[in-house]
Amino acid sequence: MKSPGGMLLASIELDRTSAVPLYRQLYLQIRQQILSGRLQGGMRLPSTRTLCAELGLSRITILNSFDQLTAEGFLQPRTGAGTYVSDEWEGRAAASEAPRQPPRLSSLSQSVLSMRSDHFGGVSYAAWEPGCPVSFLPSHAAYDAFPMPVWRRLMNRHLRQPSKEMLSYGELKGQQALREALVEYVYDARGIACTAQQVVIVSGAQQAFNLLSMLLLDPQDSVWMEDPGHIAARISFQSQGCRIVPLRIDEQGLDVQQGLRECPKARLAFTTPSRQHPLGTTMSYARRLELIEWAGREQSWIIEDDCDSEFRYQGRPQPALYAMDQGARVIYVGTFSKVLFPSLRLGYVILPEALVEPFCAVRAVMDRSPASLLQAVTADFMREGHFLGHVRRMRALYQRRQHCLLAALHRRLGGFLEVDAVDAGMHLIGWLAPELDDAAIASGLASQQIYTYALSDYCMRRYLRPGLLIGFAGTPEEQAEAKVEGLAQALIMMGHRF
Amino acid sequence: MKSPGGMLLASIELDRTSAVPLYRQLYLQIRQQILSGRLQGGMRLPSTRTLCAELGLSRITILNSFDQLTAEGFLQPRTGAGTYVSDEWEGRAAASEAPRQPPRLSSLSQSVLSMRSDHFGGVSYAAWEPGCPVSFLPSHAAYDAFPMPVWRRLMNRHLRQPSKEMLSYGELKGQQALREALVEYVYDARGIACTAQQVVIVSGAQQAFNLLSMLLLDPQDSVWMEDPGHIAARISFQSQGCRIVPLRIDEQGLDVQQGLRECPKARLAFTTPSRQHPLGTTMSYARRLELIEWAGREQSWIIEDDCDSEFRYQGRPQPALYAMDQGARVIYVGTFSKVLFPSLRLGYVILPEALVEPFCAVRAVMDRSPASLLQAVTADFMREGHFLGHVRRMRALYQRRQHCLLAALHRRLGGFLEVDAVDAGMHLIGWLAPELDDAAIASGLASQQIYTYALSDYCMRRYLRPGLLIGFAGTPEEQAEAKVEGLAQALIMMGHRF
Repeated sequence: MKSPGGMLLASIELDRTSAVPLYRQLYLQIRQQILSGRLQGGMRLPSTRTLCAELGLSRITILNSFDQLTAEGFLQPRTGAGTYVSDEWEGRAAASEAPRQPPRLSSLSQSVLSMRSDHFGGVSYAAWEPGCPVSFLPSHAAYDAFPMPVWRRLMNRHLRQPSKEMLSYGELKGQQALREALVEYVYDARGIACTAQQVVIVSGAQQAFNLLSMLLLDPQDSVWMEDPGHIAARISFQSQGCRIVPLRIDEQGLDVQQGLRECPKARLAFTTPSRQHPLGTTMSYARRLELIEWAGREQSWIIEDDCDSEFRYQGRPQPALYAMDQGARVIYVGTFSKVLFPSLRLGYVILPEALVEPFCAVRAVMDRSPASLLQAVTADFMREGHFLGHVRRMRALYQRRQHCLLAALHRRLGGFLEVDAVDAGMHLIGWLAPELDDAAIASGLASQQIYTYALSDYCMRRYLRPGLLIGFAGTPEEQAEAKVEGLAQALIMMGHRF
Repeated sequence: MKSPGGMLLASIELDRTSAVPLYRQLYLQIRQQILSGRLQGGMRLPSTRTLCAELGLSRITILNSFDQLTAEGFLQPRTGAGTYVSDEWEGRAAASEAPRQPPRLSSLSQSVLSMRSDHFGGVSYAAWEPGCPVSFLPSHAAYDAFPMPVWRRLMNRHLRQPSKEMLSYGELKGQQALREALVEYVYDARGIACTAQQVVIVSGAQQAFNLLSMLLLDPQDSVWMEDPGHIAARISFQSQGCRIVPLRIDEQGLDVQQGLRECPKARLAFTTPSRQHPLGTTMSYARRLELIEWAGREQSWIIEDDCDSEFRYQGRPQPALYAMDQGARVIYVGTFSKVLFPSLRLGYVILPEALVEPFCAVRAVMDRSPASLLQAVTADFMREGHFLGHVRRMRALYQRRQHCLLAALHRRLGGFLEVDAVDAGMHLIGWLAPELDDAAIASGLASQQIYTYALSDYCMRRYLRPGLLIGFAGTPEEQAEAKVEGLAQALIMMGHRF
């Protein structure tokens, strides 16, 4: 039976090509063996001479390692008797090989795990190559068209003279400059009159939904949600233990009358009135009034998620619910993810005055404001006119891309899906024959690296035909034909005919 | 009585020096009046001729505004009869001037609001001037010494050729490159053997504490916490509805025996073993074993917050609890805030394998991983050796700064506070005479723009003398004398004598 020392020797592996010095490699490996319990306290190490010979190391190298291990309490030289693992490392069990009990998690996490959360797990962007032309994901913007040289210049401006303010913990609400730029922007673009004091910068719309749930909702509270509707927001509310009341979408938007019949005392309504996500409907003026009147009457809240409102191609833009509401019942959530880029992780919440301090208190517990540098650059980007210019260019670009993709889809896949132009947003809906399973089709396409979303993923109750969400913003016009051909071929591979 | 049209006219204010075109200003203001209900549906606007005369605008300007307002449904021209606010804006109440009822918030937010959360509200960094030399805040690092040119170069490298991966939604766990760099770093520096798959990038230690609370704790669960201890972490657990069990700190660290007596079945222990925050004690080897054995026996968790472990000046660094534990009970939390800079908003969690997927599921509901660009730059900073170089330089710098500040404090304030050198960390503790109120002193100093923290802010139960946390990392050696003199003068102003 090999001695412990022998076992140590057998497991040491040195990489002579590594930049890490050999004495350091030896130190790390002996330390690891002691920490993991494979070398027990009181065990004698092989002699320096043996180690030199067996590992091909100089005596100096061995002694350097041993010296550091001794200084750190791992080894204990006994004069004339060799080097031992320190007694204090005695009796430690090595990692058990037996399978451990599954961890006991909180009730909250058990319910999160059991919820349909593959929306997040789903498509991995990491699997793509930069030139990969096969995504129709709705959230995929025209990254190639982002004005990176401007962005870079603004970044460098802030990196050149970084102030203590830039580097240190930022203001809880986020940078004043960005909040002020947003006040001007939302007033201009959405008719929202507010002050910088009512604006809080968050790390994305998702964080906003979570903070608002924590702020306003108790377990068992009811929440009106559009059905089909925003998946991530729904999961936020469900993880607070709330009861979701799914309301249909008709040609005017969220069916408020249905809400009044089924659950008039809901605490909160979540809505995407600019462009219903995912169906694309714009909530009519009359419907907006109904919703606002209900909220005022019941003293309930409305979260207005204004995703993609910048990308409107036709039809009249309606003023934001926040702008129309005089009862301070609406909380407005915006994001830079679609209009700049998602990895920036910046969004904002505009709160009624009475909610500002409580929201900040909850926020302070959960997190601090996002990276200051990125906020400062975004503020400059807005103040110097680049933001509005970019939005205008993207709007025009996306309109052309929509047109191209629509034409290609009609030509090649007109026998398989029914698809119309949209007034706003970044995706089309390809309606399928009623007997088809959109989730199965989306899944089959994904396994061939063609990414769409199934409409049924967004639905709590089934009352619509199956459909696929087909993003157009990320498809350059010259690629539309080829991408649609790829989609067609993939469908054929799955056995569909058209 | 003035007609509504007259009231409109009276309230229009045009800024002829503004970059915003006059027709746009007029559009915005009329729109605002309609949205806010001050101009009601059906009201007739003054004639174009009147507006031209009264506002000093050309007819074209007025017509441009009216055209847009009409297209957006705010105005309705009636041929031959003038321009009216559209009927649909009829009957909307203007904002009520009466004070509203306070908003009904969730129970969670009510308890957060009532908790002692002025730790977050406290000192505003925004009030400082860049050259302001009066902070002794423990978290204030040597921002002047940060290698910004290197950081800038790495940033530009990633901004030059931004990939789809860089701009799009990142991996849930955070960037692979950064996670791999961390795996190497923690192995080398702390003896932690793990894989990149066990590392999750978060937006700071605070977010880590919150996600872990949500993952592992139910309301009413008991949590062992060091007393005095980490304030923000305590608030995290309290906001989950947990019962905090405050355990004393002795010369070996957290009093595990006290925990075993008072609450042996606690679900979780939160500890800062490298450098107890705020007292600075390093948890002894024996005490670490006790804690780990308890966790293994009870199948409880340990959150190891390894704040400031990089800044050790003397004494033997102990291996991380995570490295010593063979039972997979320890969760390790690290942050870049102190060792790089806080506004970066990057931290990391190293999880036992069984917790990785559940943690990611909870994380996916709450948020996505932090800004990709910053992760990529940090990864390069680590991989190219700048991180270790920076840490070494900071360690040496902070050791010198500590020495200087200590000497100045002894010379000038030796008659007022008792302060010793620390083995690690970024602050000293200035012990006060037992009859003094450290919170009152810290508050009085803050009102004179000298920032320290009161030790009692960190305490749940009082068993220690009062003291002030005096940060040294942010005080250049040549400023130590002057800053201490400033502190002395402020104390004299408050009536103290020494």
